[in-house]
Amino acid sequence: MVQFVSVENILKTVRTCGVETFLAGLANYVEQDFRRWELFDKTPRVASHSKIGVIELMPTSDGELYSFKYVNGHPANTKLGLQTVTAFGMLSKVESGYPFFLSEMTVLTALRTAATSAVAARHLAPKPSETMAIIGNGAQSEFQALAFKALLGTKTLRLYDLDPEATQKCMRNLAPYGLELIPCKSAEEAVEGADIITTVTADKQYATILTDNMIGAGVHINAIGGDCPGKTELHKDILLRSKIFVEYPPQTRIEGEIQQLPEDYPVNELWRVISGMEVGRAHANDITLFDSVGFATEDFSALRFLHDTVQKTGDYEDVDMIAEPTDPRNLFGLLTQDDSRDKAA
Amino acid sequence: MVQFVSVENILKTVRTCGVETFLAGLANYVEQDFRRWELFDKTPRVASHSKIGVIELMPTSDGELYSFKYVNGHPANTKLGLQTVTAFGMLSKVESGYPFFLSEMTVLTALRTAATSAVAARHLAPKPSETMAIIGNGAQSEFQALAFKALLGTKTLRLYDLDPEATQKCMRNLAPYGLELIPCKSAEEAVEGADIITTVTADKQYATILTDNMIGAGVHINAIGGDCPGKTELHKDILLRSKIFVEYPPQTRIEGEIQQLPEDYPVNELWRVISGMEVGRAHANDITLFDSVGFATEDFSALRFLHDTVQKTGDYEDVDMIAEPTDPRNLFGLLTQDDSRDKAA
Repeated sequence: MVQFVSVENILKTVRTCGVETFLAGLANYVEQDFRRWELFDKTPRVASHSKIGVIELMPTSDGELYSFKYVNGHPANTKLGLQTVTAFGMLSKVESGYPFFLSEMTVLTALRTAATSAVAARHLAPKPSETMAIIGNGAQSEFQALAFKALLGTKTLRLYDLDPEATQKCMRNLAPYGLELIPCKSAEEAVEGADIITTVTADKQYATILTDNMIGAGVHINAIGGDCPGKTELHKDILLRSKIFVEYPPQTRIEGEIQQLPEDYPVNELWRVISGMEVGRAHANDITLFDSVGFATEDFSALRFLHDTVQKTGDYEDVDMIAEPTDPRNLFGLLTQDDSRDKAA
Repeated sequence: MVQFVSVENILKTVRTCGVETFLAGLANYVEQDFRRWELFDKTPRVASHSKIGVIELMPTSDGELYSFKYVNGHPANTKLGLQTVTAFGMLSKVESGYPFFLSEMTVLTALRTAATSAVAARHLAPKPSETMAIIGNGAQSEFQALAFKALLGTKTLRLYDLDPEATQKCMRNLAPYGLELIPCKSAEEAVEGADIITTVTADKQYATILTDNMIGAGVHINAIGGDCPGKTELHKDILLRSKIFVEYPPQTRIEGEIQQLPEDYPVNELWRVISGMEVGRAHANDITLFDSVGFATEDFSALRFLHDTVQKTGDYEDVDMIAEPTDPRNLFGLLTQDDSRDKAA
């Protein structure tokens, strides 16, 4: 039997733990796995592109566990009342190849993206980082806000979205969490006085959410939304002034903000900073940029954390996904002998 | 909601249809999709190798539907009472990226492999093909036997396995199906008088199940077991005498029997024969060889067929795998508002 965490069950578990506690726990797993970076079998995601979106598989393994995530990205879905991104994923044992854990990952991806952003910022952002601007107040924004509150003690959010209703929605959702929430009329206004600028917009196109004059010295930029070929959020000049940190360079060069830069432009690997092998922010005036596209190891961490968490909360079902005949050579026997399923029962 | 076909439900559906009827229906879908070969987004499978096995993802798409299969291959599993191969897979809509169908595929893979072998043989084997040798009487053997009976009218099976108990198991399982079953003491004895020779052994190593002197003119060889790097079943000299047919050359050159041959050795693509663009068996004396490794399009066909079949039999469950907030930008709202899950309920 494979443990399955449905949408209902992940919501139940996150509610039981509390979102901030869940995010903090997840962030610890993400950080642990970044420290073990060299152990992982890494490969750029396997993408199937169509005119209106992309479907991707993101596999990885640490030699003991194997994970993959299925995820789509369809910006026009929102107009049809559908999610831009849906996802699910799985953990299996490398030793036997047997899957043992399956989960919805639409909610979990939002949580892991936010946890990873906050982990990166914990190593890169100026200290203290009390004020964050969030440009793009859609499906990811509240998760980002609470991860930064939980991990960095962020107190004030300056919110901007092209659509003021999105900002209102974000403010309503965040109202109970004790953050100061400031709605802004423009991206320029939002970034005023911000220690951290999070960009998390969704158009599948080259866009310029931030221009060079908006970025002052000492800021940390958490760029979430530029995450597939042809989709960026920052003006190139900002990149040239920043110290750029990425997850997995071969993937980020295809999908991230740095697709605007030459292929050999120097970037820094986040795992090396987290492992203490390299310095993140060297000077108070540095502009640090986390060019986040999301990497398979983060999903691995998220699945591992959720698995460990639901062993305590019990928020999962067993699903009958693996055929287990008593005699493994007698798969066919399952068709005729009901008793050959003893082991699965 | 995503439709999910459990092991129990696929067994129920196959029993309801009858194995041979199910295999014949599945073979038609496989053949249809081979005829549409050029439409498919094709890529070699994405493999994660470890010392004792491999875990693979096999994605494909015809532009309307996307499918992938998760499958492992762990030859030592049998000693632990586990399956060498387990699998599951999924169908989603390219337009939205939303998954809509999830299924166990351990049983389904055995069925689709057999159906594909029989489709290939229908185009390549001598006519009539009343006698088939099956060398390797493990988990796949009965499926192969019944697919050939259903599609080619095979009447007599000559069975051999290193382990006589495997042959006995195969004979017990096939007893109700009206085939003449002849247990043999060696591979040499098994191939005597056979029109078709199926090799379906499981060791992850170079092996020589068939040697050159065992192969007479006019035979069709259905080589199933050589299906990963370092794993072959046929002596190279047999390949040199045969007209070789493969599914997807870039994958077969890595995984199939032809990994023993130079990279530019000419091979024929099965889809071109099925589409009528090329001749399969030109002369009665030809030795034809289907160097089968299994390709993603066959899983696509199998999932499509199973999906269409369970719409009639009703053998599926709905699983809560896709988060569907009423407002797609309000994913976070799911955590606080139970009523935002209206659409999923």
